[in-house]
Amino acid sequence: MSAEFERIAVLGIGLIGSSICHAVKKFGGAKDIVGHAKSAETRKIALELGLVSKVFDSPVDAVKGADLVILCAPIGACGAIAAAIGPTIEPGAIVTDVGSVKGAIVRDCAPHIPKHAHFIPGHPIAGTEQSGPRSGFADLFQNRWCILTPLPGTDEAIVAKLENFWQRLGSKIDRMSVEHHDLVLAMTSHLPHLIAYNSVATAADLEEVTQSEVVKFSAGGFRDLTRIAASDPTMWRDVFLNNKEAVLEMLGRFMEELSMLQRAIRWGDGETLFNLFTRAREIRKGIIAAGQDTAAPDFGRDPSHKG
Amino acid sequence: MSAEFERIAVLGIGLIGSSICHAVKKFGGAKDIVGHAKSAETRKIALELGLVSKVFDSPVDAVKGADLVILCAPIGACGAIAAAIGPTIEPGAIVTDVGSVKGAIVRDCAPHIPKHAHFIPGHPIAGTEQSGPRSGFADLFQNRWCILTPLPGTDEAIVAKLENFWQRLGSKIDRMSVEHHDLVLAMTSHLPHLIAYNSVATAADLEEVTQSEVVKFSAGGFRDLTRIAASDPTMWRDVFLNNKEAVLEMLGRFMEELSMLQRAIRWGDGETLFNLFTRAREIRKGIIAAGQDTAAPDFGRDPSHKG
Repeated sequence: MSAEFERIAVLGIGLIGSSICHAVKKFGGAKDIVGHAKSAETRKIALELGLVSKVFDSPVDAVKGADLVILCAPIGACGAIAAAIGPTIEPGAIVTDVGSVKGAIVRDCAPHIPKHAHFIPGHPIAGTEQSGPRSGFADLFQNRWCILTPLPGTDEAIVAKLENFWQRLGSKIDRMSVEHHDLVLAMTSHLPHLIAYNSVATAADLEEVTQSEVVKFSAGGFRDLTRIAASDPTMWRDVFLNNKEAVLEMLGRFMEELSMLQRAIRWGDGETLFNLFTRAREIRKGIIAAGQDTAAPDFGRDPSHKG
Repeated sequence: MSAEFERIAVLGIGLIGSSICHAVKKFGGAKDIVGHAKSAETRKIALELGLVSKVFDSPVDAVKGADLVILCAPIGACGAIAAAIGPTIEPGAIVTDVGSVKGAIVRDCAPHIPKHAHFIPGHPIAGTEQSGPRSGFADLFQNRWCILTPLPGTDEAIVAKLENFWQRLGSKIDRMSVEHHDLVLAMTSHLPHLIAYNSVATAADLEEVTQSEVVKFSAGGFRDLTRIAASDPTMWRDVFLNNKEAVLEMLGRFMEELSMLQRAIRWGDGETLFNLFTRAREIRKGIIAAGQDTAAPDFGRDPSHKG
């Protein structure tokens, strides 16, 4: 089976959609890319940047002749798109997505994909805190994991072809069940975003400390905690509405642990604090050792470097 | 009054102490720097790197002949050092510190500083998640705020001389009361570190998701939330033990806000989530606009870049 697709249809041209376009142009994987975007402004930018050869205001037109369809819209919008394109999807086409919650995608999209096509949910663990069609770049997926959650009974050769596509774009591949994916991501991605948003909101509501002071002295740690709070609000609202159980479970654990630390501070229990901080530091070093971050002292980096 | 000191004594040669040495060598501010470190290994490294002209195992020996003494030890160790050096401090010398809690420093150190010297608490808002005598670098203070909290009655010309010293090292200066400093830092620095440590601890205790999975998929946000959890455990234990009231106040507000978000997720209240996320994003943009962080998509950066 050819490792190259004839035509990819990218449905939704934001950070991930535009990065896929850049990456395919740089690393290959398809002869042609067409796109769909709801907003006229995004469609204009997509053509201007040469992200796609054609762009359509209707997803139905975009999937005609495509042997790979990638849903890149916020999770809450994917069901309606799947319902619209279902009757038009080409026989043998692979339909995948990039959403951060797989249970909701399977629930909302799978029923609409015709039996003559192949639906394989996917999720590249890559992103930045930026959004929109201008935010993408070709190297976004380099050295990043892409998780596929194929449903039982999916043709192995078809899954392998999609894996091969993501590998060309620089990704490392993992497979897991839909349910396990949503639990892992609740901890590694959804909870961190919730905490970042919540920290900014807490700071904004203080009476004794002004917002400008928080901004001014943010180099003390606040700016690092809140970097991901610049992420797209619509995308993240949909994540929390659609991965409710797993997020509430992880959030409950986080709050329990925080109550324990609160108590240690109140009672001056330095040993509990020191032991927890030491253990946390070791795990943090594991992230660096696993190649998922750099040990460079980023926290203290010079903000005048624009790179 | 000369803007240059004859001899600086740096007491404690970790990240901040060693960075002061590098910065003075690069930007000026003193004719000579001597140091004190408790650990023989640190003293060896300090000489090997040429951070100081002389290094002493006793802080008392280090302050002889020094017209600027900078306490760079963890907060919990500063009181004992101040008590030891008190009788030896030179007439007219300035004694300052770099601690993240000013109330505790004033409480523990001020009584030991003789009347013929000048005690001015200080705090450069700069750091990285690294520690030790090898972690310092000359540009750490560039474009960063340094807060001085002079006590009532301090000679203005003396405060100005210390301000001038920090400005030479690249800092911008602010002044505030001891109490206000500790409240501002509880929000901008102490709470973020507590949350980072707590997030790592929460992830480490999961049953269904393994620690290696958390590390593997940390690019989804977890690695950004936890970067500062690699910071020095001793220093941070001392911060929380010594800024208890302000940290508990900010932590209480954080937990209230988080309970509100928890409720919004449980009840599927997308509007509350969207509005809070949108507001948080705007404030986050303020941090970038204030020059305290870069808009570069750091979250998605390639970890193979070692810089």
